[in-house]
Amino acid sequence: MTAANRVWNRLQTDRRERLAQAAQALGTDLAGKLLPSSRIADLLHAVLRPGDRVCLEGNNQKQADFLGMALAGLDPQRVHDLHMLQSVLALPEHLDVFDRGIASKLDFSFSGPQAARLARLVSAGKIQIGAIHTYLELFGRYFIDLPPRVSLIAAQAADRHGNLYTGPNTEDTPAIVEATAFRSGIVIAQVNEIVDELPRVDIPADWVDFAVRSPRPHYIEPLFTRDPALISEIQVLMAMMAIKGIYAEYEIERLNHGIGFDTAAIELLLPTYAESLGLKGRIARHWALNPHPALIPAIEAGFVESIHSFGSELGMERYVEARSDVFYVGPDGTMRSNRAFCQAAGHYACDMFIGSTLQIDLQGNSSTATLGRISGFGGAPNMGADARGRRHASPAWLKAGREAGNAGMPRGRKLVVQMVETFREHMEPAFVERLDAWRLAETSGMALPPVMIYGDDVSHILTEEGIANLLLCRNEEEREQAIRGVAGYTAVGLARDKRMVENLRDRGVIRRAEDLGIDKRLATRDLLAARTMKDLVRASGGLYEPPRRFRNW
Amino acid sequence: MTAANRVWNRLQTDRRERLAQAAQALGTDLAGKLLPSSRIADLLHAVLRPGDRVCLEGNNQKQADFLGMALAGLDPQRVHDLHMLQSVLALPEHLDVFDRGIASKLDFSFSGPQAARLARLVSAGKIQIGAIHTYLELFGRYFIDLPPRVSLIAAQAADRHGNLYTGPNTEDTPAIVEATAFRSGIVIAQVNEIVDELPRVDIPADWVDFAVRSPRPHYIEPLFTRDPALISEIQVLMAMMAIKGIYAEYEIERLNHGIGFDTAAIELLLPTYAESLGLKGRIARHWALNPHPALIPAIEAGFVESIHSFGSELGMERYVEARSDVFYVGPDGTMRSNRAFCQAAGHYACDMFIGSTLQIDLQGNSSTATLGRISGFGGAPNMGADARGRRHASPAWLKAGREAGNAGMPRGRKLVVQMVETFREHMEPAFVERLDAWRLAETSGMALPPVMIYGDDVSHILTEEGIANLLLCRNEEEREQAIRGVAGYTAVGLARDKRMVENLRDRGVIRRAEDLGIDKRLATRDLLAARTMKDLVRASGGLYEPPRRFRNW
Repeated sequence: MTAANRVWNRLQTDRRERLAQAAQALGTDLAGKLLPSSRIADLLHAVLRPGDRVCLEGNNQKQADFLGMALAGLDPQRVHDLHMLQSVLALPEHLDVFDRGIASKLDFSFSGPQAARLARLVSAGKIQIGAIHTYLELFGRYFIDLPPRVSLIAAQAADRHGNLYTGPNTEDTPAIVEATAFRSGIVIAQVNEIVDELPRVDIPADWVDFAVRSPRPHYIEPLFTRDPALISEIQVLMAMMAIKGIYAEYEIERLNHGIGFDTAAIELLLPTYAESLGLKGRIARHWALNPHPALIPAIEAGFVESIHSFGSELGMERYVEARSDVFYVGPDGTMRSNRAFCQAAGHYACDMFIGSTLQIDLQGNSSTATLGRISGFGGAPNMGADARGRRHASPAWLKAGREAGNAGMPRGRKLVVQMVETFREHMEPAFVERLDAWRLAETSGMALPPVMIYGDDVSHILTEEGIANLLLCRNEEEREQAIRGVAGYTAVGLARDKRMVENLRDRGVIRRAEDLGIDKRLATRDLLAARTMKDLVRASGGLYEPPRRFRNW
Repeated sequence: MTAANRVWNRLQTDRRERLAQAAQALGTDLAGKLLPSSRIADLLHAVLRPGDRVCLEGNNQKQADFLGMALAGLDPQRVHDLHMLQSVLALPEHLDVFDRGIASKLDFSFSGPQAARLARLVSAGKIQIGAIHTYLELFGRYFIDLPPRVSLIAAQAADRHGNLYTGPNTEDTPAIVEATAFRSGIVIAQVNEIVDELPRVDIPADWVDFAVRSPRPHYIEPLFTRDPALISEIQVLMAMMAIKGIYAEYEIERLNHGIGFDTAAIELLLPTYAESLGLKGRIARHWALNPHPALIPAIEAGFVESIHSFGSELGMERYVEARSDVFYVGPDGTMRSNRAFCQAAGHYACDMFIGSTLQIDLQGNSSTATLGRISGFGGAPNMGADARGRRHASPAWLKAGREAGNAGMPRGRKLVVQMVETFREHMEPAFVERLDAWRLAETSGMALPPVMIYGDDVSHILTEEGIANLLLCRNEEEREQAIRGVAGYTAVGLARDKRMVENLRDRGVIRRAEDLGIDKRLATRDLLAARTMKDLVRASGGLYEPPRRFRNW
């Protein structure tokens, strides 16, 4: 075919045809871009085609649950074999679409609570997985080889023109909408309310094709709330070691915390233990982090200068608005989050990522994969990878780079800390000779074992037995013994070469609490700046409003 | 101070005070958010404070030149010691602000044509450089420790409410505005025109504080236009080797090209040489790339399925709009670019980066730094770094990973190709024992030598003498000899261990044109799909309109 008679605007024509079909199907029920929720199935039947790539906004927290439910209820005779693109599969309907044959292919990042059912549906041949990504990687593919044809998103409110206010939980919305609207795709938004005047416009109406008020507000999971009452004294000890052995040692000013009780304990020790070490103003000043309730006491103590967030956290809205010097808020005063920018910031502008894991092998590879569950990655692979594109220096980054000792050309290094108790629930050892990820890869036909953080990106492993600094290991054997040396009474730990481990300890590669001058007797819950949810509410001056399930008083 | 009497909204208060001062200074000249260009100095004097962090939109291409000029003309008694944040320093006024004492500190990414003057001003103590970044890294810091207090941006048009249309050259605007507007900062936009109805809203008025129509349209540099007439036959040969020895070898479908004649030659060989090898549909399908005019013949030949862009390219507007199946365009039909998303896409979703450099050392570190010039990095460190946060597999990525042969845990690898003639202009050797970057670091007080791409991230070095595959090198010595083995008649090349180089060639670590079955006699300009600018215009069906300076007919 010559260029002359080739058609170059098929996407635009197809888009126009679908919009016309929607207009016809909805008739006078369509008021500009607004339609009643009762007509959502008609809209989806009109604009979807078999085989479409469809992005359903399933975020880490915010869910386009009404649209997801509607999608799952469509007629599989008319709409089938969709290729779903989704950050997170969190709700049953996210898998119902596959079970019912409406969709057949999936590219995603994280599945969390649906991991076991996802594995079963893959085994049953009902889902073909394209790949599992980290969030920013999946967004990247939206602009290269996986642009969505139709996106189903969630916002707080729309005005009558179709402008959207995404509010505190903006999360993935800007990335999804941009990749769709600027590739001649179709954007459909569910909103909690339709108002005359939005607090602010977050997504211009020009980028949105349809908005529908959902019968119930969209679902939001309070994923980052940890009840301080459940923090153990072992976690307090590990948090003390983290603060004295890593935060203070490298003077880490810019950082990201993973999710969980281990890092919540660190947050709650900043205004007590870290303050007593004279670290205020010297560590933990700038954060890429959601508004963790556990950080309230540190914020109130003046430890924290700024926090940019991937998403928000349920109940933290009023607190965030009242602490606008710390958080990112709009001209209207309400919070703004943005996962794409926060992931970029966490990767390139933070000196440290610290997070928990489930399994670590002898090379330091860590994974949360377990057999029979395809849980995915989320954001950790991106935060927990050395940012090799980074060029600006900081004392922490330079010190880590010196310790890693690149041959020839000096270079900085990101600190990537994996924090784990040697035994997890049900006395499962956290240290293993071989990750479960290997067997999962074999049984699920993955090209590579699903490693969350690769050993050569990890700088430190922290357990209740001590800190192993992998940067200082000169070879694979030393690295293995450094890991065994903090692996406690697990089989991996018991098989240590005792003399070599003592030698590594002499060299400071392994450091135990006593080597750090930490008095273990102080490692009690008394050190926590808040010991209950009520303490957090009190610390916030009553501004924090925990979701009901966390109100135990 | 207790939390009770601590003030938590100083940024918001300060913002309100500045806006009130601006309203007072401008009086009735302020119509909503719009002011006449004659009052710009009054506005800037009203909203700026000494020591402010100010982001001036200097992009790779689009320049907020009117605002930059106004800034450089302010009264240094009133506005001084600004901390400038800027992607690119391209124009004289970008340095005038330092020369005149209005600004004193600088964090940036690239300085290009101002590199020599920048070095002089640093030596003279007029500029303190915070750090030099890659683009996405600098954007990341805007959300962590370098949020702009005031941003001076450029857009195509504003409406009377202050909504902005950024058009094809959106570039860095969304990242800058988001970091400022959501940190209680102040956003000032220069626009080419003020209209009743925008083609589409790109930046909502709620995120913008002031808009001013500039006397002249903002400057745009046609940075990615290369006249095919200037491509040499050596570049044709190197392009043939790239296509047959790398693109075909790894079946690279998703990629980014650096700037320059080397990669322009590859683009112009796709519809001729690559087509003759049966590679259409198998390589170079999806791109993270600006609309390079040299890619027009490949697009017309159906080689290219999609292109997402960092910015646009002057003269390509009509062509892009007419090829909307290939490019990212808005619902209004005009192009959209976005540097932040395209950098993320290039880093995480592309299998290869290929670009030119100035100097390569024996470890494969490459740099464009030369003494007396502080030129910065731009986007290359990010595109040319292994994406260690990537988790999705592709054949190219897996093959590169297998060749690199990670011990223990298998992993994919990004292909990072450095393409360079052994001698550059003025017979300067491209291969050196020690990069000029070392001396530049010493004389400029940098913490590390400014390396563009680190040797351990480079997979291939391609010269007219052949391709060195560094992934296959088993140790530092082999790597050094592989590099010497393609370094031609430079001193580095002449000092090769001939036997070892032949051994590397036997193993396929080094491959010469003849090893690839390339007939060097075919390496003539006849192989180029376009040999002149006029050929490009013709190939575009008259849609491409080159800037005047490229019209040589």
